Amino acid sequence: MGSLGKYVLTFEEADPDDVKLIGGKASSLVLMTRLGLPVPPGIIITTKACREYYDRGEKLPEGLMDEVIRGVRYLEEKTGYKLGDPEKPLLVSVRSGAAVSMPGMMDTVLNVGLNDRTVYGLAKRINNEHGAYDAYRRFLAMFGRIVLGIPEEEFNKPLDEVKRKYGVKEDPEIPLEGLKELVEIYKQIFNRRFGKVFDDPWEQLKLSVEAVFKSWNSPRAKFYREANKITPEIADCTATAIVTMVFGNADWRSATGVVFSRDPATGENRLYGEYLPYAQGEDVVAGIRTPKPIEKLKEEMPEVYEQLYNGVKLIEKTKKEVQDVEFTIEKGKLWFLQTRNAKMNPLAVLKTRVDMYKEGMITKEEAIMGVKSEHILQMLYPRIDESKAGKPLTKGIAASPGAVSGQAVFDPDRAVEWSKAGKQVILVREETKPDDVHGFYASVGVLTSRGGATSHAAVVARAIGRPAVVGAESLQIDYGTRTARVGDSVFKEGDWITIDGFTGNVYLGKVPTIEPKLPPEFFEFLDMADSVAVFEIRANADTPDDATIARKFGAKGIGLLRTERMFRAPGRLELFRKVILSDNSNERKELLDQLAEMMKRDFLEILDIMEDYPVTIRLFDPPLHEFLPNFEELVTEVTRARTLGKPDPEKERLLARVKALMEANPMMGHRGVRVGITFPEIYAAQVKAMLSAALELKRRGKHVELQIMVPQVAEVRELELIINNVVKPTAEEVFKAYGDRIEFKIGTMMETVRSCLTADKIAKVVDFMSFGTNDLTQAVFSFSRDDVENKFMSKYLELGILPYDPFVTIDEDGVAKIMKIAIDLARNVKPNIEIGICGEHGGDPDSIKILARVVGRGLNYFSASPYRVPVARLVAAQESLKILGKAPKIHIY
Amino acid sequence: MGSLGKYVLTFEEADPDDVKLIGGKASSLVLMTRLGLPVPPGIIITTKACREYYDRGEKLPEGLMDEVIRGVRYLEEKTGYKLGDPEKPLLVSVRSGAAVSMPGMMDTVLNVGLNDRTVYGLAKRINNEHGAYDAYRRFLAMFGRIVLGIPEEEFNKPLDEVKRKYGVKEDPEIPLEGLKELVEIYKQIFNRRFGKVFDDPWEQLKLSVEAVFKSWNSPRAKFYREANKITPEIADCTATAIVTMVFGNADWRSATGVVFSRDPATGENRLYGEYLPYAQGEDVVAGIRTPKPIEKLKEEMPEVYEQLYNGVKLIEKTKKEVQDVEFTIEKGKLWFLQTRNAKMNPLAVLKTRVDMYKEGMITKEEAIMGVKSEHILQMLYPRIDESKAGKPLTKGIAASPGAVSGQAVFDPDRAVEWSKAGKQVILVREETKPDDVHGFYASVGVLTSRGGATSHAAVVARAIGRPAVVGAESLQIDYGTRTARVGDSVFKEGDWITIDGFTGNVYLGKVPTIEPKLPPEFFEFLDMADSVAVFEIRANADTPDDATIARKFGAKGIGLLRTERMFRAPGRLELFRKVILSDNSNERKELLDQLAEMMKRDFLEILDIMEDYPVTIRLFDPPLHEFLPNFEELVTEVTRARTLGKPDPEKERLLARVKALMEANPMMGHRGVRVGITFPEIYAAQVKAMLSAALELKRRGKHVELQIMVPQVAEVRELELIINNVVKPTAEEVFKAYGDRIEFKIGTMMETVRSCLTADKIAKVVDFMSFGTNDLTQAVFSFSRDDVENKFMSKYLELGILPYDPFVTIDEDGVAKIMKIAIDLARNVKPNIEIGICGEHGGDPDSIKILARVVGRGLNYFSASPYRVPVARLVAAQESLKILGKAPKIHIY
Repeated sequence: MGSLGKYVLTFEEADPDDVKLIGGKASSLVLMTRLGLPVPPGIIITTKACREYYDRGEKLPEGLMDEVIRGVRYLEEKTGYKLGDPEKPLLVSVRSGAAVSMPGMMDTVLNVGLNDRTVYGLAKRINNEHGAYDAYRRFLAMFGRIVLGIPEEEFNKPLDEVKRKYGVKEDPEIPLEGLKELVEIYKQIFNRRFGKVFDDPWEQLKLSVEAVFKSWNSPRAKFYREANKITPEIADCTATAIVTMVFGNADWRSATGVVFSRDPATGENRLYGEYLPYAQGEDVVAGIRTPKPIEKLKEEMPEVYEQLYNGVKLIEKTKKEVQDVEFTIEKGKLWFLQTRNAKMNPLAVLKTRVDMYKEGMITKEEAIMGVKSEHILQMLYPRIDESKAGKPLTKGIAASPGAVSGQAVFDPDRAVEWSKAGKQVILVREETKPDDVHGFYASVGVLTSRGGATSHAAVVARAIGRPAVVGAESLQIDYGTRTARVGDSVFKEGDWITIDGFTGNVYLGKVPTIEPKLPPEFFEFLDMADSVAVFEIRANADTPDDATIARKFGAKGIGLLRTERMFRAPGRLELFRKVILSDNSNERKELLDQLAEMMKRDFLEILDIMEDYPVTIRLFDPPLHEFLPNFEELVTEVTRARTLGKPDPEKERLLARVKALMEANPMMGHRGVRVGITFPEIYAAQVKAMLSAALELKRRGKHVELQIMVPQVAEVRELELIINNVVKPTAEEVFKAYGDRIEFKIGTMMETVRSCLTADKIAKVVDFMSFGTNDLTQAVFSFSRDDVENKFMSKYLELGILPYDPFVTIDEDGVAKIMKIAIDLARNVKPNIEIGICGEHGGDPDSIKILARVVGRGLNYFSASPYRVPVARLVAAQESLKILGKAPKIHIY
Repeated sequence: MGSLGKYVLTFEEADPDDVKLIGGKASSLVLMTRLGLPVPPGIIITTKACREYYDRGEKLPEGLMDEVIRGVRYLEEKTGYKLGDPEKPLLVSVRSGAAVSMPGMMDTVLNVGLNDRTVYGLAKRINNEHGAYDAYRRFLAMFGRIVLGIPEEEFNKPLDEVKRKYGVKEDPEIPLEGLKELVEIYKQIFNRRFGKVFDDPWEQLKLSVEAVFKSWNSPRAKFYREANKITPEIADCTATAIVTMVFGNADWRSATGVVFSRDPATGENRLYGEYLPYAQGEDVVAGIRTPKPIEKLKEEMPEVYEQLYNGVKLIEKTKKEVQDVEFTIEKGKLWFLQTRNAKMNPLAVLKTRVDMYKEGMITKEEAIMGVKSEHILQMLYPRIDESKAGKPLTKGIAASPGAVSGQAVFDPDRAVEWSKAGKQVILVREETKPDDVHGFYASVGVLTSRGGATSHAAVVARAIGRPAVVGAESLQIDYGTRTARVGDSVFKEGDWITIDGFTGNVYLGKVPTIEPKLPPEFFEFLDMADSVAVFEIRANADTPDDATIARKFGAKGIGLLRTERMFRAPGRLELFRKVILSDNSNERKELLDQLAEMMKRDFLEILDIMEDYPVTIRLFDPPLHEFLPNFEELVTEVTRARTLGKPDPEKERLLARVKALMEANPMMGHRGVRVGITFPEIYAAQVKAMLSAALELKRRGKHVELQIMVPQVAEVRELELIINNVVKPTAEEVFKAYGDRIEFKIGTMMETVRSCLTADKIAKVVDFMSFGTNDLTQAVFSFSRDDVENKFMSKYLELGILPYDPFVTIDEDGVAKIMKIAIDLARNVKPNIEIGICGEHGGDPDSIKILARVVGRGLNYFSASPYRVPVARLVAAQESLKILGKAPKIHIY
């Protein structure tokens, strides 16, 4: 209990770490107060009060307002202003703020305490009657909308009329006369509706507090909490801060602004931000006037700038995170109004983590845990290929990185609807509001025609990782006709556009993109991550190109090289078809020898690129008939020929053979090791090719680590047969031919349920195991991926039958569980056997998290597609820290 | 250690129960000795000696022959005969016999002790020089073949020459002169090969003992042990009995014979058997002369018959099994030579178990454990439809029950070869030998032209459950041309024939068969089995006919009623196609209402038949596209129409729809509960139909136990959705319409791996679970049954990769293991939940055994196809006794 009572605390006495009680926003004010920074005096109504408000059926807790009155008295003492005093009126903001940030989701009321009498005192205080009345008319509109629930248009319409009447375009240009008229009109609106004008400051305060409480349960706040999985354990109700107003619109030595402790776009260690002289804070956020860069302040008010700089840096050092600080200057005096961890460009996040670690500000673990997988993913977003881009339609502010093409939609609901229909959309708006957030999630990118780098659109797009261009001012949007225009160029709803969140450029149509250039910090950071990881990251790579990218992105080997495409390459498919169609084992062998020679070249190239790293090559896996001509086409051709009376015996024969090879369920049919057993020549040819390649590289003095992997094993004897009757004899043949030997490992892909259930037996005969989680997921669910994703997966996700697509993120209850069973069985008989995962899940951050939780260090490596290698390295390191108990707590606010 | 030393025991001092030490054959002699029956005196070289023989690298254990000499002295004392004595020579048989019977697999030497001198004494003893020389020449041939390893032809050729010389057909007709010539020729063979004639009886004895030892490891003995899984724990080496010879060929008051304590074909409680006067035992077994029925003995030698009868019955009572006894009469004196448990017709086995239980000879448990699953299966073999059979080609002795058709083959190797190629063959031979056994296994039936009901062919066919006709004497077989002839009728290799093991009839071609008539004992026995079982047996039945058979065979309900065929019935398929092709939910509902009305009638009939028993109805399971027209045909029709320039828009539309519904892997695609979720109308229609049927039966005063089963569940929320959104609301609708309610259970088919891994969650929402082990096996192996069985299963079995087809017998390492996981999870949250199995494995004896072993009482019931219900009842009862610790030990010999 504080000095004021049960529910209310002063900034001086609150504990900044008790975020659940005082909310994140107040916490930052308390912290800054403690750090000795100039913060407008304030008091906090704790979340407890709001919780009780709801528990009592939306009634204010008893005694709360008495405490608030005592708190206001305290503020009056501290400031020398007095609530309702016509000469020196105390004005306050009533601010919402829960334990976690819910940007823009709840309400705040500014300038509480204004009425026909106190506006006089304000005018005196800021020496500016015009400014006072401007604040007054804004207060009335805000109070009317937020507290009284009157639709915004009712205030906007008179505003527009007054502007028209006085022939002005922008709000600040309205003359005093006009502002006074507006005040009268707004009061009439209140009076008409409620029979009173709410000019009692105490009543204003009480109603504002209640409005803040109510805003906790507004539909948009509830949606946001659901979408972001904010449970009552994380944040239960909002706190309410009552803070003395200061005025950035007091005169031209007044201003309001936002500043970052480092550049949120590049991570550069310099103050970055903007400010608007003679303005209230909302003018900056709303993006209506274009602000000045913060460097200007250094010129105009050097002492204020220095105080700001030092204050911001002090907070950053304390919180160990880049800060996003709101400030106001009233008549040359600086006030800190809010600080929070900055939303940053992923690249900037990474760079600042590395820099702060180097500066000694944070530990290595803190550096690693402070980066999210989305950050890494976003950095790999493609960029516009400038050489092919042509002239941009227009240019705005590059607000969130990444270049992306999509079909333009002009409202968030449509964005959701189209996205559900499988379309890739870009949300195009003049400006965005919290109500629009569902549209952000549905879009691949966001484009606005107004607002700056800290506008709502920019902040949200960065937060959820969508490329965004904001404030593209030349863009004229007509919601009515669903078109947008720049001069003579028009695009309408459904047209493709491309936005470049790196440059701010906007293009008509789909523009080709190129790979991002990654800064040295990217690699530096990931090497740091690797240094703490207990899991290794390898890559799934089938081609030399894949291997090159994988190696560049830091893969420590190839965890899965699929050899199928080597049979599909031009000139080879024909040969391989002959193999399949032949019923003569010798002929097959001869043809396969030719193929082996060709495949040797492929292996040579890849093994060379991956020198010194393990390369796991999977033997032939798919059903044979995939390599034959299309059945429907054949039937059509044969029927046509017959109908025309000219039957084609060759085609008929082929059709018969294709029919004989066709399978009811090829996924579970004659494939993988089963082909290896029935057609050992095919596996022998592959083994010959890869060992020959390895030996040639050895001749050239290169070190090769070959791992041969047998797919689709369900029974250990399959494996034994392949090892003893195919791999070993073939190896001896090759060794003899080269007069040299090479060590290699033999392992199996764990992708049938039975291999998992008999992993103890399998472990005894192999050097390594690698979970093929794609097929394993199919087997565990009895879901054929091809069919499921077409026919009912969307329905399943929509109905909540599955919480997520198990082909994207590993199924914890089934697939991870059976992997755990397998790993325990295997490690029980061979504790140090190498076990990895090479399904697509290997590069999915959520899957890595689930698997680290379920099997811990049971896995040695994750093998991810090349572009997923960086994010896998990050998540693997973070999960390693958790497993090792070395993960520092991360600030949730 | 016995009175004679370390390795050798007398019949008097051996323990008949120590079968591992003295072997089964000696055990029976010891037992009969103990029972006071006349058994020729004998001694036993224990298995220990043979084991040491092999451990010493095939050297006789030291001191063994000294003990044997002491043993022979003991025999000399008991009998008054003396080894090598020209006047009163002791002659012995040296017999093999391991802990378990390996009929005909090891060697025995008769008449050891004969030489040029002792033959004289034998002639005196049996008062018959001709008989003595006949024994002598036979001894030499046997000794030569078995002990000295000389090919049989070397003895047969001179035999044939002598017969030709004296113009006789049968061996007994050879005059004394001829026999003496043969003896000389045989001695010359020995002399030529070994430089001596082996006329020292002690040497004969020693070499015979060693030959018996050696025969333990003969290729055919090893093959037999492998095939029958006889491990060293079960039988390690052979014992050797040295038994005083008695002579059934001493005079016409001598005979040799075989007798069963009950009729092995019908189980009737009467002596059954045959004997040959003036003959040695092998004459009966080899089937060369046709013996007299045992009843004749009663007339000819009533006292001997009575002694035999009483002895046989005494043994039966002691051993609690029907006995197969070999005896010899020497000059009117009866000797018991061997007794063993009789191989019987399955029907006879069943009847005797019931009879013996009723007679108080055995307990209920002993009765149940004494029947094998093969017995039950064989009783259900179809019989010849006499009305359609036409005239038989010939008639032989009905030696092993069942009627069967197959392609004739004339040698066992060919039988194996053809059977591997998938042919159904009947082995046709003049007579069979132990070397032919592999051919029995490969054949569906056996036909011989010689030998009686106890000939080798008859015994083996009964033992391994193949229908057999033996001694069809009019059949003339020509191995050279591979043909068989009866008068003018000829069949050649590959021709179809039919044999009737019930009547002995042989037919040309395939003859229609009819269902067997089952005796009351069949049902009496199975009711007895049920009374001890902890598992219930239900049936998989889709039609009223199935249900009727199931009920007749004692199923306690329907464990699986597949509803798919109800959609395929004529007049319904068209309606259902319209449902599938419609994209209008209301239209679908209307069509399904019509279908529901039709299906109600089906359900009504089946529920009525199964009154008072649970009926588990599975909701629609297969992929929808199975109900659409054939894709290839459609493509062909569309192409033909187009080629002719007359495209058919209707067909084109249909083709497009079929293509849209087609799936890459329908087994794992849009089927089962997934269809229920995407097209809830289909499930609703089925639920409506079955509940309406149940309520109509209730109106008629019938008690119905309906269990609704949801297939293919992988996630508990699928189930919850179907229960809450489809089954329950539909039930309420139906209840309202009928103004009445009915209780029913809801459960799920456990056939995906994930359902097993999450069985705890699933158990919470269902009343019962039933393992669909067909699909579960597919999922565990990633084997599509359709494809696997065509493309590589035979290869897998041939290579020994799989020990058996897991679609026939449940896979212990994988499928049973995951069932165990599921059952443990489920029972942990709901201990009394009803759990069954309704895959085809439910009626497979080996599967029931495996599951009883792996999951014990975790399962409540097995559901089997109707014809498998009886065998399932038997095995379930036997496994129950084992689980309850109430299974009596079964004599292995």
